[in-house]
Amino acid sequence: MQNFVFQNPTKILFGKGQIARLNDEIPTQARVLVTYGGGSVKRNGTLAEVRAALAGRTVFEFGGVEPNPTYETLMRAVDLARKESVDFLLAVGGGSVVDGTKFISAAVPFVGEPWDIVAKKGMIEQVVPFGVVLTLPATGSEMNPAAVITRKASRDKLGFINRMVYPRFSILDPVKTYTLPPRQVANGVIDAFVHVIEQYLTFPAGAAVQDRFAEGLLLTLIEEGPKALVSPQDYDVRANIMWCATLALNGLISAGVPQDWTTHMIGHELTVLYGLDHAQTLAIVLPATLTVLREAKRAKLLQYASRIWGIATTDEDAAINEAIARTRGFFESLGVPTRLAAYGVSAAGIPTVVEQLRRHGLLALGERQAVTLEVSERILALCA
Amino acid sequence: MQNFVFQNPTKILFGKGQIARLNDEIPTQARVLVTYGGGSVKRNGTLAEVRAALAGRTVFEFGGVEPNPTYETLMRAVDLARKESVDFLLAVGGGSVVDGTKFISAAVPFVGEPWDIVAKKGMIEQVVPFGVVLTLPATGSEMNPAAVITRKASRDKLGFINRMVYPRFSILDPVKTYTLPPRQVANGVIDAFVHVIEQYLTFPAGAAVQDRFAEGLLLTLIEEGPKALVSPQDYDVRANIMWCATLALNGLISAGVPQDWTTHMIGHELTVLYGLDHAQTLAIVLPATLTVLREAKRAKLLQYASRIWGIATTDEDAAINEAIARTRGFFESLGVPTRLAAYGVSAAGIPTVVEQLRRHGLLALGERQAVTLEVSERILALCA
Repeated sequence: MQNFVFQNPTKILFGKGQIARLNDEIPTQARVLVTYGGGSVKRNGTLAEVRAALAGRTVFEFGGVEPNPTYETLMRAVDLARKESVDFLLAVGGGSVVDGTKFISAAVPFVGEPWDIVAKKGMIEQVVPFGVVLTLPATGSEMNPAAVITRKASRDKLGFINRMVYPRFSILDPVKTYTLPPRQVANGVIDAFVHVIEQYLTFPAGAAVQDRFAEGLLLTLIEEGPKALVSPQDYDVRANIMWCATLALNGLISAGVPQDWTTHMIGHELTVLYGLDHAQTLAIVLPATLTVLREAKRAKLLQYASRIWGIATTDEDAAINEAIARTRGFFESLGVPTRLAAYGVSAAGIPTVVEQLRRHGLLALGERQAVTLEVSERILALCA
Repeated sequence: MQNFVFQNPTKILFGKGQIARLNDEIPTQARVLVTYGGGSVKRNGTLAEVRAALAGRTVFEFGGVEPNPTYETLMRAVDLARKESVDFLLAVGGGSVVDGTKFISAAVPFVGEPWDIVAKKGMIEQVVPFGVVLTLPATGSEMNPAAVITRKASRDKLGFINRMVYPRFSILDPVKTYTLPPRQVANGVIDAFVHVIEQYLTFPAGAAVQDRFAEGLLLTLIEEGPKALVSPQDYDVRANIMWCATLALNGLISAGVPQDWTTHMIGHELTVLYGLDHAQTLAIVLPATLTVLREAKRAKLLQYASRIWGIATTDEDAAINEAIARTRGFFESLGVPTRLAAYGVSAAGIPTVVEQLRRHGLLALGERQAVTLEVSERILALCA
């Protein structure tokens, strides 16, 4: 097991009716900016419920934070927050709204050009505190200090991680996910699944309990994910997916083990270039990554084949092939195609993706920094 | 899944050589009281390593915190801390030293009789902050806000839980556990195992991921526990047991599920009356608890039989019998007998234990508060 430091200060309020607790979590004198996305929280009543819980406070709203939130949009929220002397932010939505709110939180008091927070990992000395009302389980952003922001003008999709941007609290009410479109449900399950894989399917590190936890998340997502599409209002199914997605990326299963993230890095470029959903890119890239890196990942692929898919590993190569096929089949069973062609992206675009990776300095990805541009290109070739 | 609130602020510094980090975690101007137990930390050099890391600070020492730490002993530490205006505590040892230090932390600034913190759940308005250097993985106290304190004079062993007594940080260096006597290693594995069982083997609550995590801890303890006795200096084995013991009782696997704690409550009385090690009492009581409560716990016992022990559950009663027998066999395989008689305690003492439970108001234990004194007595009868 590798040495690690683990500390996660976010307070999770989980379950039915927890939005009412906002009243205890946000100071009564606060000037609150509520951020949200495309307006579904307006249509389904969640925003009204939030406003009721915030009664008595001065509340501003900023809607329109898009999937893969952009610097261009978020800077308008920063301007509003500065103008109105906002001192608490509340993200109401999914991972994009949460990520965007992390950027706003750091950008409002930032001296200089806020894009430097992302592009140059600029020092964050203070933040506007923020909480979350999560409506879409997927990214884990509700309990971690990371965000991914896109700059439209320059086609950059880049992340930053800073302990200052842990949410103060996150409210997770599974009922709020009942009305999600199936595509977003499937995307969320795949996003959480691949988060786990990035921290698990590397090389053995003598971390038995982290492996068991990662496997527990994968098994739960495989069992509960399809049920969420069939029975959208099954509370326990929704609750398990929601809690899995949070635990998949809150620092717990990564503590003491190597991490990969090749699939995410390549996927980000596909989103920026072709507008694919984040989870769609993961569903496309992961099977290809596992195929190309099968030797480096052999021991863990065999463990994955056995413990997750119940595959006998007497014929190792057959077991690995079947595990990768079962993974692809799981994504497809959720209605998410796993080939670029299915999204109308041709293999002719691959050099452009590789060029983007080069431009972003992603020249040595993976748990052993062995995924060179040449290896990334081979992975992309298998995505076609 | 039940509603829950989860927030755990303790910072974990895990791995080889982490004691040196004390220098970053404790203010340089602090007046530090280092608490420890029977002196093994003096003999094996851990205390010297701690003192080296604290160089430049004013450091006091208080040794002699006993297993099942007593109010009588701890109050002497409280007096010392008050006299010397100590403003940081550092527990160096196992769960008893950590629990004792939590009491000291709350008692030093407490107005009135500090025993009220335990006996009357007295309001804690401030604490002396404290950190931990853990040398014995077992209780999970290093990452939770609970402590159990014994009052010798009145034969009381009682717990308190208060968010104010989370450790600020805990340093977990598996190397520091290499020199533990086999009895303490075995006790630690059993303690962690039964902590998990108390939060898992109740009734189904639709909490799939909590179940998987609990099972992951149990499987790891079953696999790694015996290895620790055979190969005391296997780093990864020690690391896995240490991290399991912390995760077994840090609020994670209990979030959203019912809890039992019958075995612990009965076990506490056995320790107070007969001086048995805490883990010895758990090894004795758990098989009896599962046997007596087999109907109420049937569904989870079958899940436990299948997922932990790989027992086919076609004949349900046979599967439950075998799962309980395997549990008993696991404890015995670690060298810990599972019958009162093996410790020289006769069945004639059982009425005295029941009387203690009555005196402590433990009249309705368990996840459904269905364990009356009469049920406890039946459990104790099976411990003989």
